[in-house]
Order: sequence, then structure tokens, then C-alpha cells
Amino acid sequence: MEKKIPYKIYLEESEIPTQWYNVRADMKNKPAPLLNPGTLQPLKAEELEPIFCKELVRQELDDDTRYVDIPDEVLRFYKMYRPSPLVRAYFLEKALGTPAKIYYKFEGNNTSGSHKLNSAIAQAYYAKKQGLKGVTTETGAGQWGTALSMACSYFGLDCQVYMVKCSYEQKPFRREVMRTYGAKVTPSPSNTTNVGRKILEEFPETTGSLGCAISEAVEAAVSQEGYRYELGSVLNQVLLHQTIIGLEAQAALRKYDIKPDIIIGCAGGGSNLGGLASPFIGEILRGEADYKVIAVEPASCPSFTRGKFAYDFCDTGMICPLAKMYTLGSQFIPSANHAGGLRFHGMSTIMSQLYHDGYFEARAVEQTSVFEAATLFARVEGTLPAPESSHAIRVAIDEALKCKETGEEKTIVFGLTGTGYFDLKAYAQYNDGTMTDVIPTDEDLAKSLAQLPKVDL
Amino acid sequence: MEKKIPYKIYLEESEIPTQWYNVRADMKNKPAPLLNPGTLQPLKAEELEPIFCKELVRQELDDDTRYVDIPDEVLRFYKMYRPSPLVRAYFLEKALGTPAKIYYKFEGNNTSGSHKLNSAIAQAYYAKKQGLKGVTTETGAGQWGTALSMACSYFGLDCQVYMVKCSYEQKPFRREVMRTYGAKVTPSPSNTTNVGRKILEEFPETTGSLGCAISEAVEAAVSQEGYRYELGSVLNQVLLHQTIIGLEAQAALRKYDIKPDIIIGCAGGGSNLGGLASPFIGEILRGEADYKVIAVEPASCPSFTRGKFAYDFCDTGMICPLAKMYTLGSQFIPSANHAGGLRFHGMSTIMSQLYHDGYFEARAVEQTSVFEAATLFARVEGTLPAPESSHAIRVAIDEALKCKETGEEKTIVFGLTGTGYFDLKAYAQYNDGTMTDVIPTDEDLAKSLAQLPKVDL
Repeated sequence: MEKKIPYKIYLEESEIPTQWYNVRADMKNKPAPLLNPGTLQPLKAEELEPIFCKELVRQELDDDTRYVDIPDEVLRFYKMYRPSPLVRAYFLEKALGTPAKIYYKFEGNNTSGSHKLNSAIAQAYYAKKQGLKGVTTETGAGQWGTALSMACSYFGLDCQVYMVKCSYEQKPFRREVMRTYGAKVTPSPSNTTNVGRKILEEFPETTGSLGCAISEAVEAAVSQEGYRYELGSVLNQVLLHQTIIGLEAQAALRKYDIKPDIIIGCAGGGSNLGGLASPFIGEILRGEADYKVIAVEPASCPSFTRGKFAYDFCDTGMICPLAKMYTLGSQFIPSANHAGGLRFHGMSTIMSQLYHDGYFEARAVEQTSVFEAATLFARVEGTLPAPESSHAIRVAIDEALKCKETGEEKTIVFGLTGTGYFDLKAYAQYNDGTMTDVIPTDEDLAKSLAQLPKVDL
Repeated sequence: MEKKIPYKIYLEESEIPTQWYNVRADMKNKPAPLLNPGTLQPLKAEELEPIFCKELVRQELDDDTRYVDIPDEVLRFYKMYRPSPLVRAYFLEKALGTPAKIYYKFEGNNTSGSHKLNSAIAQAYYAKKQGLKGVTTETGAGQWGTALSMACSYFGLDCQVYMVKCSYEQKPFRREVMRTYGAKVTPSPSNTTNVGRKILEEFPETTGSLGCAISEAVEAAVSQEGYRYELGSVLNQVLLHQTIIGLEAQAALRKYDIKPDIIIGCAGGGSNLGGLASPFIGEILRGEADYKVIAVEPASCPSFTRGKFAYDFCDTGMICPLAKMYTLGSQFIPSANHAGGLRFHGMSTIMSQLYHDGYFEARAVEQTSVFEAATLFARVEGTLPAPESSHAIRVAIDEALKCKETGEEKTIVFGLTGTGYFDLKAYAQYNDGTMTDVIPTDEDLAKSLAQLPKVDL
């Protein structure tokens, strides 16, 4: 007899995974190495250590260790907000009239409002263990900055956040949460760094960009004794920490003998996508199971579906390392009307390699259809989803509706990475009917892709 | 051997209570009846039914039924966000260095952000069952309006929310959440009601008040075919629905053989306080156990500690029924600088009678000390608490620090009713050091208490 599936599957505390999973260990084609932007040679640990914590550099470069122990101190913190529930979307299924069984792994039940805390607490821990005074970072929408502030507050580390100026001004509440957690939040560009001063001199009216905030945070880290820089997505180390999502989901599914058919995650820098999907892709790589895995990206920033698999800079300033990834070109900027997040021009090198090798598919969706899905989901499942997460909701609904047509009882699992409490300006646009879709033209993309660096390894 | 207490105790779905608890059945001195404001005679069901749903009127007046079945449809919705966790505040205990064991029942893990949903879904259900088209209500801070919008969206009911104008303007995001759930949100006073037009004529610059929004919502309900009015606190029916909090807490405590010594709740209109505490007070009333129960209220709105136990109007407009309660006078308005919520001048008649009869104590706390407690809690326990809930945190910390002095290992349970995501303006004041405490003078109180109606039953 089939076990009765509760609305929310919570693992016991003792069932929380105690190791992260490193999918690189199972990949035949390893992700290409990061390159030094000056020499265009693969980066060595000693070149990264002035910027990142030592242990995180080790994790970044480790293609071989399959399982990495989660430190006890991190596990203890995880217990504050984990395990996160795997929710059976009974109400959504009913609203759609689908025979599909839909589950979502909900990462929004913590004050940072998203999955970002999973890596923030690990990164803060390694900084503390290394005896550092503090860390620096940048934040756009504010989820990562909030998460890192919470993590640093827990370990008593100083936390300096460079927040893109327009977000700083438009999202004063995000800023206030970070301040409540003791972080020092500086609008970027600022007068506190050389790169900030230079940009301000050249463009006094600029409202900032993530690329510029990254440059300021990195400069702040390397120019202060006892500081390092920490980043919330894209990197291998971040994807590693985020695998707690997929591993917990697998444990919850196993507990109730549920075999998923389709795994869906939204794709920005790739770390939440990889965090959810890579443990499942690992099973595919090892020949243990087969799943249809779908990455969902915004049509206005379509790295997988319209980008190029090539070496590119990770930042607009072209001072950060180069990564081989699906990219739209480091000079690509999504249309200003794009409110759905997931704005990064590139993609995790791990997820890029896996996509290139055919282990999952990708879909680009338009933001009005994303907010339509978000609103339906909010109304029937209660939780107001983050716009980012709603990309996954959109495709989960599409797949469930296909099942309605075919009568197939597929089991769908998607990642609900966070809540939309700080994104209500975008919801207002949608509610007011003023939200539009702007998709880059082929000419736009050709132009930004023409600027890809020439790399000959 | 003592069972290991996890960080978060989640009941199984099958352990969610299926009945609400009506403490009136165990009270020797029943709460005094509501009075008709015109005749000053006890209100009969038929006088209330044009305003409230029939079944809710029955619950309002029922002093005898000890346990009330939770309808299946409500239970199903509860499973969307319940059971709520009973959290062991290990991190807070450590930060305080106290031998006390601190638990909190966390009601903020749903999009309305608070416990209000517990009653909203019940009230929407009874409206639907009665075949109504929709309901009207008022909202100040927005928690109740959000909760009722979610509940109405679930049952396909129209939801008309009169939102105090200053909140409507200052909290556009709250408004947007309600709109996302399909509610019609009108700033109050408005031109849509007679009472609103009259107030606007007299005071064109007014930013509104809860009393005025109540009057508009009631008028809107009685003047539309198929509509009723619903209220989020103060009433007996609301307290009844909120007992799911205390009953779940008791079940979780029993599961781990935990015997609490102290129960702490914040006190606004009294429904969350009663929801958490009344099942415990019931044990006291029945002679089965003894607890120290503490109600915590803002020093700027101190109904229990400085009010009078007397009949008074429930609204500033003096058109609603009279209730016998601890009141500061219906004309009392807390200082404008008060940011901590819990602004109602009166109190649940049930909780008032129980307080009068000595079943619990009350404490008034100043808001700067409340935000100090809130900030400490956020930093060590992760969750950013609502200012209202933080009143309970303040006293839980005070009690835990007393245990530190005496060495007693007391077990403290407090209610964390919600999150502070929409209260960041108040946090900003605290972070900026511009928050002050303004406590009403004896003269202020004497003045508003002098206006209590003369009632001779």
C-alpha cells in the first residue's frame, strides 16, 4: 500500500545530511578551470587565497572528493532553520486538475528568505576558523547580503556589504534587516574604495551595478588586514554547500518511497539549481537512475538557451577570473524592465559543463508568465514566492498541464528557493498590468557575444 | 533518561488537534456579555447576525461547549502551514548564559506572517458555508487583512479590506500582498461609505484610524447583499480559533515530557494571548496543573496594568457593542511614536475576566527595551521577530535572566506570533537610535477613563 504523503515532509533532525555532495567527483568531463585574467593561465590556490578563505579555495579547486563533511558548527546552525520541508502541492494539483504529483523543496523559511543562508553560514564558518576579523561581499536584491549578515552575526565576524546603489535606495528594508544583524551596508559605488571613487568620478550619476559592487568588495577585502571576500553564487564552493537542498530532498523522497520523474530549478548563477539538481544528476552520472532535469531561466537573460559555451569574465569590470561557461557576454545587461531576478550574464562552470554534456535541458520563460504562475501559486499554496523561484513554478505548472493532457501521473519536484516579501514592487507592476516582456534581440546578443575574450588554452 | 529535545519540535500531521478549546466552559465567572450600544442590554444572536456569520455568532455567545470541532475544510487548510514548530531556543539560552529552558511557538511561517491566519480561515469557511458572496474587514498594520485575503482567496470569496489610510500609504507592500490574493483594498476613510464621507468632510486631512476603518467595514457589510463583517481579534470566536496555538504547544510538550513553568504571550486585543495561554489556564481552572502565565503589553498602551475593568465601547466611534474589559477608554490613542503594535485600547472579555480573577499576571514594557530584545533574538535565533511578538521575547529574556541569578532551571514557553518583515521602519528607528519611549501620564489616562460609559446592569 502506498504510504499517505503528508502535506509537508519534515525530516527528523537526525536525518539531516551531514555531508555535502561534490558532483565534480562523478563528472567524466570536469568543469574547465578558472583562468587568471592577466596571464590567462589556470588559477592556482595561492593566487586565490588572498581573496578567498583558504578552505573555500580548497573546495573550489577540488574536483575529486565526492562527499565533504559539513562542520559540526555549520550543522548546528543548519538545525536552526533546517530541515526545510518538502511540500506536496496538493492544492496546486487540485487547482490545475492534473494527475501529476507535484512537490517543492521550500527554502524560504528563514529570515534571509532564501536558500542563500546554506552557503553563507559555511563561508562565515571557514572565515572564523581561519581567524579572520571579517568578510566583505556585494549584494544586489539583498538576499545574499542578508544571509551573510545573519551568518557573520552568529560567528561574531564583521560583515561589510556593498549594496548596488539603486537597490540600497529602493530596498531600504533589505538594508535595515542587514543592519539589524550588525552588518555595515555601503551603497555602491562608494568613496570607500579606489574603484568606487574612479567610477563616481567618471559617472557621478550612476546607480551602480553588481559588477562594480563586486569590484569594491574585492578591493575592500584585499586592502584590509584579516578580511576576505565571499560570494553567494556561481562558484563551485557555493554549489557544493547548496547540495544540502537536493540531498535533503532525496532523503525525504526516499522516506516515502517517492520516485521523481522531473526535477526543476531556476537558473541564475547556477548554485541553487546545482544545489537541488546535482545530487540527482549524480545518480544519472553513476548510472543509478534517470531523471528529466530542467533549468529555467528568464527570457530576458537566457544564458543557457541563447548564450555561448566559452571562456568569459565573471564581472563587467573584466578584472575577475575567467570561467568557461554559458555566457551572454560580460557586457550583457538585461532590460531594465526585467523584475524577475536571475540577471547574471554567465553560469556556474559545473552546470555549464553538465548542460553542454546533455545531462539536463533548459527553458527560457517570460516574466509576465512567471508572475502569472507566482500569483496562482500564492493563492492556492499560501506562500508568496520569490520571482526567481517562480520561474521554476512556471515550468512545473507547464509540465503538470502536459500530464493533464496525456493523463500521465508524473512526479515533479521543483525548488522553491525563497519568498517574495521584498519583491512587492514587482508584484505591484504585475497587479497593475504594467509589467511587460522585453527579450534581447539577436543583434543585441551578437554584439555582447562579440566581446568575448579570445582564449587559447 | 531525558529525551533529546530537537531544535524544532514538529508534530506529525495526524497529531494536529482537531478541536478548538473554549475556556469559557471551564470558567466559574463567565465573561460579561456584550451590550447593545443603544439599549445597553445584552446582545442577542439575532442582533449580531446581520453583521457576523451565523455560526460565528453562535461561537461568540457559547459559554458552555468545552471543545468545538474544527471543520474538515479548515483542518485541510491548517495542514498547508501547520503544525507550527515549537522551537527550543538553544541559541538564546546560550547567549544569555541561563539555566532556564526556553521554548517558543512560532506562528510566522506563512505568508500572512502571523497567527492571524488561524482565525481568518475559520471565519472565511463559515462565510462560505453560509453561502455568502464575500466579507469585509479593516486592517491597521496589515497582518489581519493579509490573512483574511489569503483565506478568502482559498474559498473563492470576495474580500473587501478597509486599510487605515496612513498604513495604506506607508505600507504599500502589505497592500500589494493583499491585492495579489485578490482582495480589494480601500484606504480609510473613503468615499465608499456614509461614515467615511462624513469623516472626510469634517477632517479632510485625516490619515484614518482603526476605529474609523471598523465603522466603514461594518457599514459596507450590512449595506451589501450577501456580505458579513469579520474581525481579527478581541472577540471570543477569534480567541477560540487561536487556541490551536496552545493546544499544539501542549501536544508538542507532552510528546517530549516537558512541563513548562512559565507561559508568556503578548497582549493586544487578547486573541493570540488567549490562544496560547487559555489551554494552559484551562488546566489551572480544572485543578490539573499550575503555571505562571504572563501577559505582556506595551507601556504606551497598558490596558491590563493601568486600565479599568469596566464596560466600554470597542471602537472610537462608539457605535460598536460595549464589552466589559480592561480598557484605557475608547478615546485613548497611544503616542504616535509607538511603533510596537498592540495599540487597542481594550482587551478580550475572556482574558479580562481571567485577569480580574487572578489567573495570570501582566507586565508593561517600553518599546526600546522590546526592540533591544528583538535584535538580540534575531541575531542569535535567526528569525526577525514582529514588534508585537517581541514584547513576549522581552519578558522571556527577563525571566530567563532571573533564573540565571537564582540558578533555577525553569521552563519558559512564549508565543512568537509573527515575523517583522513588514515592520522594518520601526527597526530602522531603533537601529538609528531615534526610537523613544512615551508613556501616558496619569492625567492622560484619567482623562480618557473619565469618558467611560455609565452602565448599570
